[in-house]
Amino acid sequence: MATIKDIAKKLNISSGTVSKGLNGASDISEQMRQLVLDTALDMGYVPKSMKNIKHKKICILIENMSYENIDQFGYEIIEGFRRAAIKKNFNVTIVPTSLSMQAEEKYDHFMLKNSYSGAFFLGFALQDRYMQQLKTTTFPTVLLDNQIAGNQNVAYIGTESAEGIDSAIHHLIELGHTKIAFLNGSQNSMVSEERKRYFIDSMNAHHLPINPKMIAYGYYVPDCAKDHVPGFLQEGATAIVCASDLIASGVIGELTRLGKRVPQDVSVIGFDDLPISQYLSPPLTTIRQDRQALGESAFSVLDNLMQHLAVSKLLLRPYFMIRESTAVCKENK
Amino acid sequence: MATIKDIAKKLNISSGTVSKGLNGASDISEQMRQLVLDTALDMGYVPKSMKNIKHKKICILIENMSYENIDQFGYEIIEGFRRAAIKKNFNVTIVPTSLSMQAEEKYDHFMLKNSYSGAFFLGFALQDRYMQQLKTTTFPTVLLDNQIAGNQNVAYIGTESAEGIDSAIHHLIELGHTKIAFLNGSQNSMVSEERKRYFIDSMNAHHLPINPKMIAYGYYVPDCAKDHVPGFLQEGATAIVCASDLIASGVIGELTRLGKRVPQDVSVIGFDDLPISQYLSPPLTTIRQDRQALGESAFSVLDNLMQHLAVSKLLLRPYFMIRESTAVCKENK
Repeated sequence: MATIKDIAKKLNISSGTVSKGLNGASDISEQMRQLVLDTALDMGYVPKSMKNIKHKKICILIENMSYENIDQFGYEIIEGFRRAAIKKNFNVTIVPTSLSMQAEEKYDHFMLKNSYSGAFFLGFALQDRYMQQLKTTTFPTVLLDNQIAGNQNVAYIGTESAEGIDSAIHHLIELGHTKIAFLNGSQNSMVSEERKRYFIDSMNAHHLPINPKMIAYGYYVPDCAKDHVPGFLQEGATAIVCASDLIASGVIGELTRLGKRVPQDVSVIGFDDLPISQYLSPPLTTIRQDRQALGESAFSVLDNLMQHLAVSKLLLRPYFMIRESTAVCKENK
Repeated sequence: MATIKDIAKKLNISSGTVSKGLNGASDISEQMRQLVLDTALDMGYVPKSMKNIKHKKICILIENMSYENIDQFGYEIIEGFRRAAIKKNFNVTIVPTSLSMQAEEKYDHFMLKNSYSGAFFLGFALQDRYMQQLKTTTFPTVLLDNQIAGNQNVAYIGTESAEGIDSAIHHLIELGHTKIAFLNGSQNSMVSEERKRYFIDSMNAHHLPINPKMIAYGYYVPDCAKDHVPGFLQEGATAIVCASDLIASGVIGELTRLGKRVPQDVSVIGFDDLPISQYLSPPLTTIRQDRQALGESAFSVLDNLMQHLAVSKLLLRPYFMIRESTAVCKENK
């Protein structure tokens, strides 16, 4: 394993300069800093703090996901992750990231400089710069709802969306619905694309016609409902499956504004089972993701990667929670 | 939790008869035994030995898979599983099964009677009776290379075949091959169907034509090569990808018999990286499955299921091992 001296020798600079480069000191040039970090990574340098087995440092990098209170999607995931990590003597740091942070510093440099042994990515989009860099990272990294092909250091964790969506469609068909709309999350996300495919697969498997005007990408806030619900109604939708509980809450609000009752006129199904979903009016039928378990499993997979056990993918089962926002289709009564 | 007394009361029989039913004693009727077991399962009866946390019993059920020595596929999987289980104070019993055993006794009855808390299935085929019964089992069960939809008690573990096959195709194309044949494993297996699909997907992604006469199902023994290799050669194949190292060893033998040299005339790629693959002549280029890690992960997922963490699927990455059975395509020299 390379030492600071080895790096200094290779670059023909002083050990002091190498240390400064590794620690992000401000009194060396940016160019030198990048050179030191790249050389350290190439030579397999491991900082002292990472060799100390007692308290290894790992981080959760968060982009575009709320997690501050229990009603937000990331909260229980982080809680589950931390709980599992603490049991194994890891220190977990939460690092909110931004596009500018990703532009300023390479992912592997960031990890090395901060002596992190591994990371868990939450909320990143496919086009994010760090996502591109994961194709070649040497740092064990676990992604929620995203997959990187061909790198043994990166794993994907998520919920088996296909099964959840199929349960929802099956439930609606049992209630007599045939005109079912799907309000998806954001585009440019692997999980949104998959869910759209699974919705279409399930409709086909149940021999229901697909109406492209009843499938739309939104984004993960209630407000996106108003752009799509009127169109769905125009096409005759009697049920709307949503890609999150927040979207579903917006859909219920918009339906009410348009004079439609839930579930008597239109049935609504959410995704996630956030704590708020049982307090909505009516309480929401939804596809539950076990977020605590996702967090625990994410740590367990990261621990596997750190021990060179190359997990590629771990998916948990969803649970279908039937509450009061779905009912027998009016047209079949 | 129901006791033996509760079951006796419900069925209006003596506790002694219930014990006999639960323990598989021979001096009660088969009908009574089935009734006792079904009632015990319905009432959520848990045998004393399963309540004892110190030494829980789990089993590996094996059908149609060799595992006695290190050159056989199941050996390291079982070793990895046992090693992980022992660390957590589980006793592991290996149970070779048969079609007649599956016909005689229901899976849940077998588990209850033997006080097993969970099981790992190796080598089962889709049409096996126990596979059907997994759709509703209440026992935590992990399957290698097989998936059961909709039951929170069952998980699937395996290797990301798509990535392995894609590496193989990519490698052959870099060597100038375009006429690539695929000799698959047995039909009626989820993993064979997937691998066929991934082979076709990868050929398409690399803009190579698919010749249906160069894709065939065999079975997992060297002997199956002689039925397919002559046909592949007739179609002009310059490379053959095989679904196991044993099949590949048969393919090399058959090619030699037909006067073809490996790799000068035809390149051959295996799957699994069994220890023998490096001793073949020539040493085999192959898609490695980390079988120790598969076994360890299978236990870890079973442990999750036993703690009600509903893993659906865990896939490990394959490693592509380049040895000497692949070379530049003669036609391009």
